[in-house]
Amino acid sequence: MHYQTFFKDALDDLRDQGNYRVFADLERHRGSFPRATARDGTSGHDTADVTIWCSNDYLGMGQHPDVLNAMHDALDRCGAGAGGTRNISGTTHDHVLLEAELADLHAKEAALLFTSGYVSNWAALGTLAGRIPDCVVLSDALNHASMIEGIRHSRADRMIWKHNDLADLEAKLASLPIDRPKLIAFESVYSMDGDIAPIREICDLADKYNAMTYLDEVHAVGLYGPRGGGVAEQEGLMDRLTVIEGTLGKAFGVMGGYIAASAELCDFVRSFASGFIFTTAIPPAVAAGAAASIRHLKANNTERRTQQAKVAQVRADLDRIGIPHVDNPSHIIPVMVGDPVKCKFISDVLLKDYGVYIQPINYPTVPKGTERLRITPSPVHSDADIAHLIGALGGLWEQCQLARIPMAAQ
Amino acid sequence: MHYQTFFKDALDDLRDQGNYRVFADLERHRGSFPRATARDGTSGHDTADVTIWCSNDYLGMGQHPDVLNAMHDALDRCGAGAGGTRNISGTTHDHVLLEAELADLHAKEAALLFTSGYVSNWAALGTLAGRIPDCVVLSDALNHASMIEGIRHSRADRMIWKHNDLADLEAKLASLPIDRPKLIAFESVYSMDGDIAPIREICDLADKYNAMTYLDEVHAVGLYGPRGGGVAEQEGLMDRLTVIEGTLGKAFGVMGGYIAASAELCDFVRSFASGFIFTTAIPPAVAAGAAASIRHLKANNTERRTQQAKVAQVRADLDRIGIPHVDNPSHIIPVMVGDPVKCKFISDVLLKDYGVYIQPINYPTVPKGTERLRITPSPVHSDADIAHLIGALGGLWEQCQLARIPMAAQ
Repeated sequence: MHYQTFFKDALDDLRDQGNYRVFADLERHRGSFPRATARDGTSGHDTADVTIWCSNDYLGMGQHPDVLNAMHDALDRCGAGAGGTRNISGTTHDHVLLEAELADLHAKEAALLFTSGYVSNWAALGTLAGRIPDCVVLSDALNHASMIEGIRHSRADRMIWKHNDLADLEAKLASLPIDRPKLIAFESVYSMDGDIAPIREICDLADKYNAMTYLDEVHAVGLYGPRGGGVAEQEGLMDRLTVIEGTLGKAFGVMGGYIAASAELCDFVRSFASGFIFTTAIPPAVAAGAAASIRHLKANNTERRTQQAKVAQVRADLDRIGIPHVDNPSHIIPVMVGDPVKCKFISDVLLKDYGVYIQPINYPTVPKGTERLRITPSPVHSDADIAHLIGALGGLWEQCQLARIPMAAQ
Repeated sequence: MHYQTFFKDALDDLRDQGNYRVFADLERHRGSFPRATARDGTSGHDTADVTIWCSNDYLGMGQHPDVLNAMHDALDRCGAGAGGTRNISGTTHDHVLLEAELADLHAKEAALLFTSGYVSNWAALGTLAGRIPDCVVLSDALNHASMIEGIRHSRADRMIWKHNDLADLEAKLASLPIDRPKLIAFESVYSMDGDIAPIREICDLADKYNAMTYLDEVHAVGLYGPRGGGVAEQEGLMDRLTVIEGTLGKAFGVMGGYIAASAELCDFVRSFASGFIFTTAIPPAVAAGAAASIRHLKANNTERRTQQAKVAQVRADLDRIGIPHVDNPSHIIPVMVGDPVKCKFISDVLLKDYGVYIQPINYPTVPKGTERLRITPSPVHSDADIAHLIGALGGLWEQCQLARIPMAAQ
């Protein structure tokens, strides 16, 4: 085999399908989020000012003074990296404090840090389902890639239930012996559609069939609940979940992932998960910044309330000019396009002609045929930003003769 | 099944075997590495001053002013986190510059960043071996857990060749059809034994049998070669390797992992690796700090030369007092103990009575029966630090009636 030819052909196929990804080269400006400088991908010399409308730094905490001060301070105190795995010199007091902060956030006995949300799902699900004898995982059909990979890694039996479909979940649970170990894996807010799982009912089924529950709250922590504990906190359900998994890289504005659960469960994953054991710990400054962010969002509702208002405003304005978007109860506004080439074209024009950056979401992030623009309003978007976004989308829909919602288009 | 009981029993088993890990809770002090404050694991209130002798921040770059200034500056410019995956708003100009720096370091066309060295091995090996039709991976028997997991993840056929054994590798290569895709996966410096692979001869075999080569240099980048490009740079072999994989979390002192390879190969992994695509990018400040560290170590040999002198001095002093250690050509000094309970006991006494922190290395990091203390001298260890370490080890060997090398013990 000629390896280079193989790689080249595979990339050409992606280009032909419209699924080749070009990364926008950005420089976000601390203090003026969501503003950034976009650079030309090739030379890096041509620059343009843009407004980011697709960030997962949902609350703008990545520029919050408490977070940045904590990071500066930790850099000055402890230096840059952790210097080792958690076991071999890499556990600093900032990691210990952050895990305590996370356990408290979710009212669990313990928490365990990972280098990313991806790794936390992969390692925790892989370890739990792989090590519990004869465990079967009941996995929601739209679970994130990291959960799918973790379940695959476990080599445990897997049953995929229809997305958010309680009847299908119950049918699958009922088909299994009551004493067989079971783990129901699902998310609260689904990232690309923005819909929310019926957590309470899933917990009821888990109780009925003696299953563990594993809830991914990466798109909810910091955003929902009186202290930012996620949808499970908002619904008063945290104590009913076996594992709550979250990220420090979205609403908390930094990076890293975690699980919160019983002391024994966290200790079990800590002791057996390859993806936890054999990797350098996150930098103390990252841990300190995340802890500061969590502390702030535990005590303050301002960011959450402002975000919710901005989300409602963007939805209302989209409705007003007839731009179709998926109705859902979360902060994620998907504008469906349904074609990868068209989706990228719209995104390119938004960036080039309007200074609005919304990355096209194509396969494999979403199924083919459901390509979309995913808009994430935040507290740092001003009314003028929203007016400009709506004007840009309206102009583009006009220019490209795209379909509007008939009623509103009149 | 009663899940909590299962977890508890599994942890009790670990304790019984002496393999239960207790993390040292440390606070490294920027400007006075390798000094740290150790806290009591339970209360966190009792503290003791310790000297770290087992860090993978091999050159002390985690406290280098260039690194810290670059991180402070990036925090001030761009804020804390990247705010998204590389594709969705998370590529900042600091990522672009770091990838260029890494490509240049290894004289490759391109480089691709991951959130950790673990993820880079898992994702790159998993994607290459999994996507190249009928690929077979020839994996050194002592490859790191992350490589093993990546190969396992690929579901490709795998042949394990005896550690650093060219005859065995060639026999396995020769047993395969010449036109079948092959990937030889190995490390330069093996982390726990400190031995070094015969890279040139492996590349010769790869050429002879039309195999790709994948070299993990995580314990070598920054440390070997005139610009810190690793053992392959030192030996003038970088152009002969298909993929060089490295970390930003050890000698470079920060966090993150990467591969360097042809533009097509990097683009292929970028386009298909789940563990690259679906994860938040590393913070711009981390990327900026790593780039500063690489730039410094490209232009300066001081840290490398000083480290090599310290390693030689510790080896000579250990020989002088008859403490047995594994002879190898690298910077890693393994003092073999061969029993998990004894290994932990020695480590505990070193910490408690002598203020010397060397984590016991037990299963699963090393095979059972090969438990060891792994000493990593660095440029930031002073002559007095070395004298204290040698005194502590000598005293402890006396106190515990441990075996010495007969000749030297006289």
